[in-house]
Amino acid sequence: MSPDADQRATTVVLDIDGTLVDSVYLHVHAWVRAFHQVGLTVASHRIHGAIGMGGDRIVTHLAGEAAEESIGDDVRARHDELFESVLGDVRPTRGTDELLQALRDRGLRLVVASSANAETTDALLQAAGAATLVEEVTTGDDVGHSKPHPEPVEQVLEKAGSGAVFLLGDAPWDGEAAREVGVRFVAVRTGGFSDEVLRDAGAEHVFDDPADLLEHLDEVLG
Amino acid sequence: MSPDADQRATTVVLDIDGTLVDSVYLHVHAWVRAFHQVGLTVASHRIHGAIGMGGDRIVTHLAGEAAEESIGDDVRARHDELFESVLGDVRPTRGTDELLQALRDRGLRLVVASSANAETTDALLQAAGAATLVEEVTTGDDVGHSKPHPEPVEQVLEKAGSGAVFLLGDAPWDGEAAREVGVRFVAVRTGGFSDEVLRDAGAEHVFDDPADLLEHLDEVLG
Repeated sequence: MSPDADQRATTVVLDIDGTLVDSVYLHVHAWVRAFHQVGLTVASHRIHGAIGMGGDRIVTHLAGEAAEESIGDDVRARHDELFESVLGDVRPTRGTDELLQALRDRGLRLVVASSANAETTDALLQAAGAATLVEEVTTGDDVGHSKPHPEPVEQVLEKAGSGAVFLLGDAPWDGEAAREVGVRFVAVRTGGFSDEVLRDAGAEHVFDDPADLLEHLDEVLG
Repeated sequence: MSPDADQRATTVVLDIDGTLVDSVYLHVHAWVRAFHQVGLTVASHRIHGAIGMGGDRIVTHLAGEAAEESIGDDVRARHDELFESVLGDVRPTRGTDELLQALRDRGLRLVVASSANAETTDALLQAAGAATLVEEVTTGDDVGHSKPHPEPVEQVLEKAGSGAVFLLGDAPWDGEAAREVGVRFVAVRTGGFSDEVLRDAGAEHVFDDPADLLEHLDEVLG
């Protein structure tokens, strides 16, 4: 990162699913059932490992290109419907509200790069209690490529007009996108990814949840 | 293990949940909702990390002794009801049937040490297509202590009257129980536990699923 860009780094980029809200396991459940409904059995642990990728690439990743072509749109529509039916079960991760307030209190701007569609992203931000704290949002509807492609992160930083202090996420796909853009990656364990996977994806720090990160915020901000 | 005991080692001890059937994520979902119903929020990834422990100890592990005393029985009953309502979603893990047949073809006896209750264990064995292949079963109803306590494994080996070639499981609790009894632990990734956690629990081998183990059976049996 150039010194100029560094000077303007006043933004924290947030992932939502699994990071601000405890939703990864609900997504796993929805994908498992969506695949069953179209007659495919895909192992839950493989689905879990792919959560955080955009819906545009997850079917190919899990079931191959032939499946994507024949049932991709169908299984995505079923997943979205099944996930929407359990939105009432979505809870914020521990300490989300306090962490976002603390970041704002330090003069940092909060932006979101989500793989979910606009409607779901809005519902999840409401569930996280973060809707009024976030300035800019990029959803799966706004971009041609989802994470781990860097486009969502690049686009939201362009909207914000500021460099990123770090990206906060729970999945290796967040880390890969951050690395492509040259942004630091700070990870939380709330998505159920192992420390090894998160470190391999470039995580500088791995915390239990937002509450744990808040306790170490001075260390992270340096 | 004494040479005598080794000579009589003709039994493979099987875990069911997450090993023969893809049920761990359904348990996570059921526990999350059961805790919500009694007014507690417990993070999904923490619940995931505790799956495979018996229901008798999981509430204390996740929510503390006070919660166990006040809502333990209630939350277990709700979990059991919620899990039973999704038994129709339970699928065998990849290659389960072929692996069990191959073990039988080599003259090995199959026994089960499950943390689930007798009724659920029976339903899961049916779902795995393993009900007619298994000779002895110990369930959570038969023992005073569940895994990681060694009692379930000790008891089923006593019933079988034979030493164990290895224990096949998906969770660190299986590994701890195996270690206490002096039985080799072979692990599959179908429960969503990381290789690091499984190795730390004593796994000699870590395979993707039963199909992957079947491909390496000569190597494992030595």
